[in-house]
Amino acid sequence: MKKTNIALVGYGNVGRGVEAATKINVDTELVAVLTRRPEQVRKEIKDVPVFHSEDDPVPEDIQIDVAILCGGSKEDIPVHGPKFARRFNTVDSFDTHAAIPSYFQKMDSIAEECGNVHIISAGWDPGIFSLMRVLGDAFLPQSKHYTFWGEGVSQGHSDAARKVNGVLDARAYTSPIEDAVRRVRTGETPEFTKRAMHKRLVYVVAEEGADRERIKSGIVMMPHYYDEYDTEVRFISKEEMAENHAKLPHGGFVLTSGLTSGGGNKQILEYQCQLESNPEFTANVLVACARAAYRLNKDGRKGAFTLLDIPPRYLSPHSVETLRKSFM
Amino acid sequence: MKKTNIALVGYGNVGRGVEAATKINVDTELVAVLTRRPEQVRKEIKDVPVFHSEDDPVPEDIQIDVAILCGGSKEDIPVHGPKFARRFNTVDSFDTHAAIPSYFQKMDSIAEECGNVHIISAGWDPGIFSLMRVLGDAFLPQSKHYTFWGEGVSQGHSDAARKVNGVLDARAYTSPIEDAVRRVRTGETPEFTKRAMHKRLVYVVAEEGADRERIKSGIVMMPHYYDEYDTEVRFISKEEMAENHAKLPHGGFVLTSGLTSGGGNKQILEYQCQLESNPEFTANVLVACARAAYRLNKDGRKGAFTLLDIPPRYLSPHSVETLRKSFM
Repeated sequence: MKKTNIALVGYGNVGRGVEAATKINVDTELVAVLTRRPEQVRKEIKDVPVFHSEDDPVPEDIQIDVAILCGGSKEDIPVHGPKFARRFNTVDSFDTHAAIPSYFQKMDSIAEECGNVHIISAGWDPGIFSLMRVLGDAFLPQSKHYTFWGEGVSQGHSDAARKVNGVLDARAYTSPIEDAVRRVRTGETPEFTKRAMHKRLVYVVAEEGADRERIKSGIVMMPHYYDEYDTEVRFISKEEMAENHAKLPHGGFVLTSGLTSGGGNKQILEYQCQLESNPEFTANVLVACARAAYRLNKDGRKGAFTLLDIPPRYLSPHSVETLRKSFM
Repeated sequence: MKKTNIALVGYGNVGRGVEAATKINVDTELVAVLTRRPEQVRKEIKDVPVFHSEDDPVPEDIQIDVAILCGGSKEDIPVHGPKFARRFNTVDSFDTHAAIPSYFQKMDSIAEECGNVHIISAGWDPGIFSLMRVLGDAFLPQSKHYTFWGEGVSQGHSDAARKVNGVLDARAYTSPIEDAVRRVRTGETPEFTKRAMHKRLVYVVAEEGADRERIKSGIVMMPHYYDEYDTEVRFISKEEMAENHAKLPHGGFVLTSGLTSGGGNKQILEYQCQLESNPEFTANVLVACARAAYRLNKDGRKGAFTLLDIPPRYLSPHSVETLRKSFM
């Protein structure tokens, strides 16, 4: 069987995860790496050709079925998406929720012109969790859904804390508030404030002699990122940061709670991820979507897609006969 | 907006659930009920026309978009499926796992001829849980998946226990073995026997003077149904059965557990249903599938489908724009 040939664009945590994922997804193969730092990356990757993502044209003789865009949603994907869509099927994890509709439109119109398939906003949230919110709502009309994240490392919040004056390094953990989870799991359907659902804990390595109280209030009161949550700040050494906070675990759950019939039978659906490595799991979702993008395109489809638009069997490496026989 | 007009075939627990579900799914409408006992059902349902499911031709002037087949998988659906498929889009919860591939083929070939859409084996297992097994396997290659059921009423096992001599009534509960669940949730991937995953508890109302030890061993040692599990039998009064065991709760969970990368990061996915009424929830899944069947057919599709074949957005009452804006 022909493998799905994958190029990855952006060799950060998710990019490395895609490289690893192509090794355990035996129907896929990594055929090119595109990065802004080709010199350095070539030292790490010996068996796959590495190109400059902005400057080099990708040689025509490398047959690429899908480009997986592994850069950030703020600056990379909005540029890489439209650029690579003109030549390849693409998959990305664009996660700026408010901008998803306009990004979808843009990628869809390029597909109309160029004939490729573009799966956007894939990953676990947005992505799998989006799917679970839609399924929960479809199967339990008039229900309420709740998304909890954590316990896990929030990279956006870590970056924000690092920008406070006097902070050398920071790692922000998000945790769900246990009592809120318990209430939803036992069938209550409350309205929550942000503060009632999640709390944050930030580990900080401070510059020597820095004013710790000022750092603390600079983080805790930071608008958008921290001011709407109860946040604890703990100062630790550089060594402790390296030793205990190098991993990127995360997780979360989507709960849908509703009543059926006038009699009022409670029905609760829950989807949960418990991830020791957030970027590696995201990478595996992206690779499954690359498989789907290539197949959809082979089936004559073009356009932008989210996980809501894809028949689930396209994501699986197994034949539909095997799925009906062994997974139903 | 035009509603999806639904006919239901078979007015048992699931049929009643579909009737209730069409009231909370405001884009659907129940327009006909087909049953083997039209005289009795007409006493219960005043506002919808009731026909004999085997004898009456459904009048041409009732516009039916989808027929939901609510009978049993053993005797009803294998007959009703092919029969109603010739005239209507259909949805059913056919749950004889081993026969799904051949039933799919049969319905698909009728669709080829008659041009309708047939969503088979919808419900939570098979159905949503099938979807979760496929997604878990697609997102975590080289993983293992585990399906646990309960705590809940197993209707097949209740029926089997009722056939033992001297049993007036029986209600069988299935429960997962807590230690097995704990092991999988903490990342172990053991091989389990059936006995290590589930246990059974059967409440029995015995005939006066019946030999209780004989009833007990008749249940506990029954092949296929009970002999591979640890089963407890408790004798109760008719009154206690009516008071404490009239509801049909159920639930369960699908766990997928795997490692990503050589480094061995554990990733665990879990989907859980906690249902106070199994037939009412199943009915809501069937109604969501009816919405999808009608839309797929309007989009020019024909054939047999499972939940693995349907783009998830077809199940939702919301527009795709709303889904992208509010659910992603």
